[in-house]
Amino acid sequence: MSDDDLAGDAGAATPRPAGFAATVLTLYPEMFPGPLGTSLSGRALGDGRWSLETVQIRDFGLGRHRAVDDTPAGGGAGMVMRPDVVAAAIDAAAPGDDPRPKLFMSPRGRPLSQARVRELAAGPGAVILCGRFEGVDERVIEARGLEEVSIGDYILSGGELGAMVLLDAVVRLLPGVMGNAQSGVSESFEGGLLEHPQYTRPPVFEGRAIPEVLTSGDHGAIARWRRARAERLTAERRPDLLAPGGKQ
Amino acid sequence: MSDDDLAGDAGAATPRPAGFAATVLTLYPEMFPGPLGTSLSGRALGDGRWSLETVQIRDFGLGRHRAVDDTPAGGGAGMVMRPDVVAAAIDAAAPGDDPRPKLFMSPRGRPLSQARVRELAAGPGAVILCGRFEGVDERVIEARGLEEVSIGDYILSGGELGAMVLLDAVVRLLPGVMGNAQSGVSESFEGGLLEHPQYTRPPVFEGRAIPEVLTSGDHGAIARWRRARAERLTAERRPDLLAPGGKQ
Repeated sequence: MSDDDLAGDAGAATPRPAGFAATVLTLYPEMFPGPLGTSLSGRALGDGRWSLETVQIRDFGLGRHRAVDDTPAGGGAGMVMRPDVVAAAIDAAAPGDDPRPKLFMSPRGRPLSQARVRELAAGPGAVILCGRFEGVDERVIEARGLEEVSIGDYILSGGELGAMVLLDAVVRLLPGVMGNAQSGVSESFEGGLLEHPQYTRPPVFEGRAIPEVLTSGDHGAIARWRRARAERLTAERRPDLLAPGGKQ
Repeated sequence: MSDDDLAGDAGAATPRPAGFAATVLTLYPEMFPGPLGTSLSGRALGDGRWSLETVQIRDFGLGRHRAVDDTPAGGGAGMVMRPDVVAAAIDAAAPGDDPRPKLFMSPRGRPLSQARVRELAAGPGAVILCGRFEGVDERVIEARGLEEVSIGDYILSGGELGAMVLLDAVVRLLPGVMGNAQSGVSESFEGGLLEHPQYTRPPVFEGRAIPEVLTSGDHGAIARWRRARAERLTAERRPDLLAPGGKQ
């Protein structure tokens, strides 16, 4: 059976639906879909362009209290999620032949980029582990080949918002999700630059006029102005994007 | 009247509560508190350690259809939020003497850092504008002194998830929000390094043992091992953090 069959035939052996299949492993499944259930991603979910399944990690916890964490080896504050519990949750959500990448939202991960978002959107989906507490035992990260992904250089109370951010970024790139009006839009990071400033009506706002070139009708001049402003903005705010071998 | 009076007396002239006061301007107020209503930030919200107010930007829209956006000056795809509509929403939410910083979630912004999160957590709160569509008219960003903040180098369908990420990061640092068990925890970006790997029970997982040093009881050796592993991990994954003048 080819991949095409799997993707196209709802009656095939696999229960996975067509489109991008997200499975989120979390101690807070009630957070989902949350913001992902409204607006662009919510409509796409309703249209079946992607699917969202949550797995409660605590269902794989140990003993009467369904323990999922324990104290860190070597001492220190906080609690660490047990490798056996996390592995059981991952294995239940994604058997060995599951083609989806297994991601772990973590400030130690490689920073999420629009390039990685595009790759994920072109794939079959993602299994996403959301950590809480002080972290997750390193051995399950290694043993299950988890890809650590960071959404930015700050600390959150858990991985759930990171998973939502990643999924929102991916879902808007899925075929049919953005209308024609938006899909051709120039965006920050396209061409490695921040986006140029935008203006709309009214022509004068609190004494501030729209830059004349934008109302000139000279499309070449407009394109040059926008490019120059995008370059200036990027140089001012994000010189790292302009450095050789910069991001993207 | 001193700031102490304002913060401590619920009967004072200002209706702003004690703690961190967040006001979010959005076209999707129903997304809030969403994930911020559960777990750590949800408990802190219930305990009055922070407050969350949403403002529906469309309430300030124009005409019978409450229009909030229009086509970009100079042409191009997408729609741009009008400066007059956004300004009216901001002015209603935060009069001129409001001491809170006004943030605009945008991929063009300066990247959010844990240092900026700490600054915000030490302040009175934040007014946060969430964009949608192609962007917001540059003139209202200038006229209202909005600070553009980016949570990462990827494109989201709107600023709402960015606002949640920022607020989650801030709220966990507010006094009394994290218990003693967590507040002393070492974290990524502390000291400019990613966090060292963590381990917990069981001693052997799928043939993988906890590194011996961590069960040695030699606290000096444990600290050295953790430091070395944190440095190695940072060098491998985030050499940018180690560069002179790197982030943080």
